[in-house]
Amino acid sequence: MPELRKDPLIGRWVIISTERAKRPIDFVMSTPSSETQNTCPFCEGHEAETQPEIFAIRSTATPNGPGWSVRVIPNINPILRIEGELTRRAKGMFDVMQGIGAHELLIETPQHLGNLADLSVEQVQHVLQAAVHRIQDLERDPRFRYVLWFKNYGDIAGSSRIAHARSQLIATPVTPKRVKEELVVARRYFEDKERCLTCDVLSQEQQLKDRVVLDSSFVTVLCPFASRFPFELCILPKRHACDFASLQPEELADLAAAMQQVFARLKRVLGDPSYNFVLHTAPFRRHRAKVGYWKTIEDDYHWHLECIPRLTRMAGFEWGSGFYINPTPPEEAAHYLREE
Amino acid sequence: MPELRKDPLIGRWVIISTERAKRPIDFVMSTPSSETQNTCPFCEGHEAETQPEIFAIRSTATPNGPGWSVRVIPNINPILRIEGELTRRAKGMFDVMQGIGAHELLIETPQHLGNLADLSVEQVQHVLQAAVHRIQDLERDPRFRYVLWFKNYGDIAGSSRIAHARSQLIATPVTPKRVKEELVVARRYFEDKERCLTCDVLSQEQQLKDRVVLDSSFVTVLCPFASRFPFELCILPKRHACDFASLQPEELADLAAAMQQVFARLKRVLGDPSYNFVLHTAPFRRHRAKVGYWKTIEDDYHWHLECIPRLTRMAGFEWGSGFYINPTPPEEAAHYLREE
Repeated sequence: MPELRKDPLIGRWVIISTERAKRPIDFVMSTPSSETQNTCPFCEGHEAETQPEIFAIRSTATPNGPGWSVRVIPNINPILRIEGELTRRAKGMFDVMQGIGAHELLIETPQHLGNLADLSVEQVQHVLQAAVHRIQDLERDPRFRYVLWFKNYGDIAGSSRIAHARSQLIATPVTPKRVKEELVVARRYFEDKERCLTCDVLSQEQQLKDRVVLDSSFVTVLCPFASRFPFELCILPKRHACDFASLQPEELADLAAAMQQVFARLKRVLGDPSYNFVLHTAPFRRHRAKVGYWKTIEDDYHWHLECIPRLTRMAGFEWGSGFYINPTPPEEAAHYLREE
Repeated sequence: MPELRKDPLIGRWVIISTERAKRPIDFVMSTPSSETQNTCPFCEGHEAETQPEIFAIRSTATPNGPGWSVRVIPNINPILRIEGELTRRAKGMFDVMQGIGAHELLIETPQHLGNLADLSVEQVQHVLQAAVHRIQDLERDPRFRYVLWFKNYGDIAGSSRIAHARSQLIATPVTPKRVKEELVVARRYFEDKERCLTCDVLSQEQQLKDRVVLDSSFVTVLCPFASRFPFELCILPKRHACDFASLQPEELADLAAAMQQVFARLKRVLGDPSYNFVLHTAPFRRHRAKVGYWKTIEDDYHWHLECIPRLTRMAGFEWGSGFYINPTPPEEAAHYLREE
């Protein structure tokens, strides 16, 4: 059973996957996977080679056969286990939890395409619908506090460049540290001003325009003022909303078009870079009474999607210090991505 | 002039190096450097090819000539600039500071060796002496709050595998976020228990022994309980001390021997991996009155050196979420590194 452990010096939870323990030899020998179209289990027609689907958008009524647009399946090698009771306990002075959670793969297209940039807007919309559906469904499980939806594209980002487009969903019994920090800052600002911090930032960015990459009717895409990485992007809804999973159909359609645009531009401008995206949305509010920083969450937290093209390698220093050095001012990055 | 910018959503400072602005083409075309022994400006005899030295441990009295053991020079392409006045200002609702600081290179050996593991213990001791000396000297500059001492070894860690062994010192007008978080947690624990949190962790680890890699008379090297990365290491002084720069000569000698041991084991066990280390030490206390979390720092903060071998690539997700997945339990990592 994997284990969730809390670092007492900094209050950060880490998943230790005790079952697939890696010995030194595994790192020395590790080579990138080289899956091809013929052997790809995620392509249409190969459904029998994966775990049975949890969810799919499909034109046929028969699950686990062809005729689908997006499919969600359990990860065959899950980081966290779905079975078991959630127990919080002490191990000496340390805090541990059993590694309970869900780990799902969202197969983003029936075709053997790798980059979200190459999908149609309608296809991206199906991806978003599937993510919303899975988050809403996982929220029903009382053991979970958060669902992380994220994507690794390309070899540097932790996936294989030729692999079939997919993203991942991990439901966790704790709120990720980065999201928790944002919640605390957002609440403090709201208590002072009775306004959402992100709404204020957005309105300033829309006035200045120099960091705005794209402005649709529903979302703004910008290079954040204090971007950690070159060409880092943040996709934000213009209308205040704390929950990604509360998106309405017309908003999903607009977001899909914006995402497809932006990933296509990243591909064109930067030569098909590896990238990651991670969704920051409100944690499940069932536990509100226990955790004070969720008090005003509907008013103060503003969901967003962080996108990080993987262009630089100065990571170890950043991991150790939390201090980032960015060689590309976000205004210049936005200029290139606006395609002026 | 580079700029320090604060992310309002999470309170993190980022250095935007506006002067060496990278365009998209710079990332597409980037190739690793291929410096060789002949052209290496850091080898003994090539002193004229670098900036004049700031500090050196040498057998001859003539600066900037041969006869040295370690040399510290200004970084030719500094991340922060030494000249100028520190101004904090608002840019709309954002916080900015001029990019004032120091950025130095510590050349760790006169020979063309890459890995700290290949240096003699005496040589590592000189490296530590130089780091201590530079931190003490930079503390005199009233504009600085912290000195980050760190090392990138190997191509994945942000350096070139064949390059000459060197580490870097960056003096900053702000305390790095990661260190600040540790300070807050350490103080909270101390206020409750009147004991140092890290001392308590250390004493528990020494009883359990399963995560301890090495125990010398002065330091303990361990794989932290909630390690974020496979074979992550933490080097800690056994005697409580908040300041790395207050180390006495016999302590430096002991630490040098432990570091050389540990890096040699990493090299042997993991096949010469890329790695980073970052020093976490107490910030300069001159600003104590302004920043409340330094109140009890001498008693509550415990300096340490974080070492991260770069074996996995699952980084983008971690950057976006602050959530780490570690495939190697620290107990197993410690087992291999103890060389049982």
